[in-house]
Amino acid sequence: MGGLTVLRALAARLPNEAFVYLGDTARLPYGTKSAETVQAYALQATRHLIAEGVKMVVVACNTASAVALDPLAKALAPVPVIGVIEPGARAAVAATRNRRIAVIATEGTVKGEAYPSAIRALRDDMDVVQRPCQVFVALAEEGWTESDVTVAAAELYLGSLFEGPPAPDTIVLGCTHFPVLAAAIRQVIGDDVTMVDSAETTAAAVADALAAKGMGNDNGGSDASMRFFATDSPERFARVGAIFLGRPIDVADVELIDLRS
Amino acid sequence: MGGLTVLRALAARLPNEAFVYLGDTARLPYGTKSAETVQAYALQATRHLIAEGVKMVVVACNTASAVALDPLAKALAPVPVIGVIEPGARAAVAATRNRRIAVIATEGTVKGEAYPSAIRALRDDMDVVQRPCQVFVALAEEGWTESDVTVAAAELYLGSLFEGPPAPDTIVLGCTHFPVLAAAIRQVIGDDVTMVDSAETTAAAVADALAAKGMGNDNGGSDASMRFFATDSPERFARVGAIFLGRPIDVADVELIDLRS
Repeated sequence: MGGLTVLRALAARLPNEAFVYLGDTARLPYGTKSAETVQAYALQATRHLIAEGVKMVVVACNTASAVALDPLAKALAPVPVIGVIEPGARAAVAATRNRRIAVIATEGTVKGEAYPSAIRALRDDMDVVQRPCQVFVALAEEGWTESDVTVAAAELYLGSLFEGPPAPDTIVLGCTHFPVLAAAIRQVIGDDVTMVDSAETTAAAVADALAAKGMGNDNGGSDASMRFFATDSPERFARVGAIFLGRPIDVADVELIDLRS
Repeated sequence: MGGLTVLRALAARLPNEAFVYLGDTARLPYGTKSAETVQAYALQATRHLIAEGVKMVVVACNTASAVALDPLAKALAPVPVIGVIEPGARAAVAATRNRRIAVIATEGTVKGEAYPSAIRALRDDMDVVQRPCQVFVALAEEGWTESDVTVAAAELYLGSLFEGPPAPDTIVLGCTHFPVLAAAIRQVIGDDVTMVDSAETTAAAVADALAAKGMGNDNGGSDASMRFFATDSPERFARVGAIFLGRPIDVADVELIDLRS
């Protein structure tokens, strides 16, 4: 579901492109599952997108990007595959002044150590602290974006980390669900911490990659077109998806598919 | 994961029996998935248990009991299949004095209307109000059993419902995750509401069914034996499972299986 925050950012930045979105709702969330399982699921899902004739695949999930990007890129070549980790890591390194970066993410992303690796590959003097914030996923899907419950959860997860000094001056929202909780997280970490939203940074990276490859489309309409596939319950996809896409989704635009067969 | 609260209650009541537990951790949670998907998953899972030679199957999940009990019973006959809904409904009807029963459950269980149907089949003058409490699942798996966050979530879900009169005098914990949150829920609903724990009521129903069929085992040890199967990450199964089983699980006792193939 959270990948829709990435789609929202992509559509805003690339209004001439046509997007095909697949939500593996029959098996979500990926965030609590093992690397092997996420790799298998992500491969099935992206093969369906390739069959739809897409020119580029965006892995709009931090967990899948953290544990499955290399196998996906190999399997889908020559179609380019872009994940959300590298753009977020770049933005965090560019933003920090005190070289202390906090990463909040799912259990799976934290365990995969993808952000610390990506950040230290860019600058080896960075101090990266990770916090798995698994409950945030459920809070976001419930639509409790600015609820007291969400602020209390943020306090429990992050309060001690940002009491500082030396507190991080930069935080990476390392799960695509988390941008909708930004206001509640902000209440706990204060106004001085730079928040890196991997949806926004990924959209910028995709725009750059399309331009660099000469693959961009300048002749579309003024509103990006979107098609949706879900592996379970189009009704729930449309209802919960609206939280993350930031606008209503018509259930008639959501096609149910089966990746299991 | 929540099914382990049922296993805990079963083991306490039936110390002579041997239990084989399967957690479909590669595809959890069932609570947000469609009836069709839950039926397909539950059928695969129970077939694995049948192949292990079990004498009875307990569907230790409210969502699967709500939407898949009949297809499971048909597919697994003559092995008896017991779900968690009917025992909880019976206990609620027996407990209520003002004929107002609250049911808290996952989205899928609420949508399936299994509790209102089961309760009204027993007594047609019951007033049943349901509340999906999806975030409770994540809070329980995080181990935040008595946290302020959980109390705040309980207040948001249940506060207005129990401000009464005419407030329900009975609440069914209609998700196997919820018994570990009982103390936090109690803070919101007060001391006068009867709490029906479907784990306890199901254990009693299983004991009765075994006795009625002459299938009970009186010759085992004093501690019920347990074997565990998980479809993903035995490490996470053992770590998170301990919250629900109420005692440590040795990861070496958890066997990884693949239901997808």
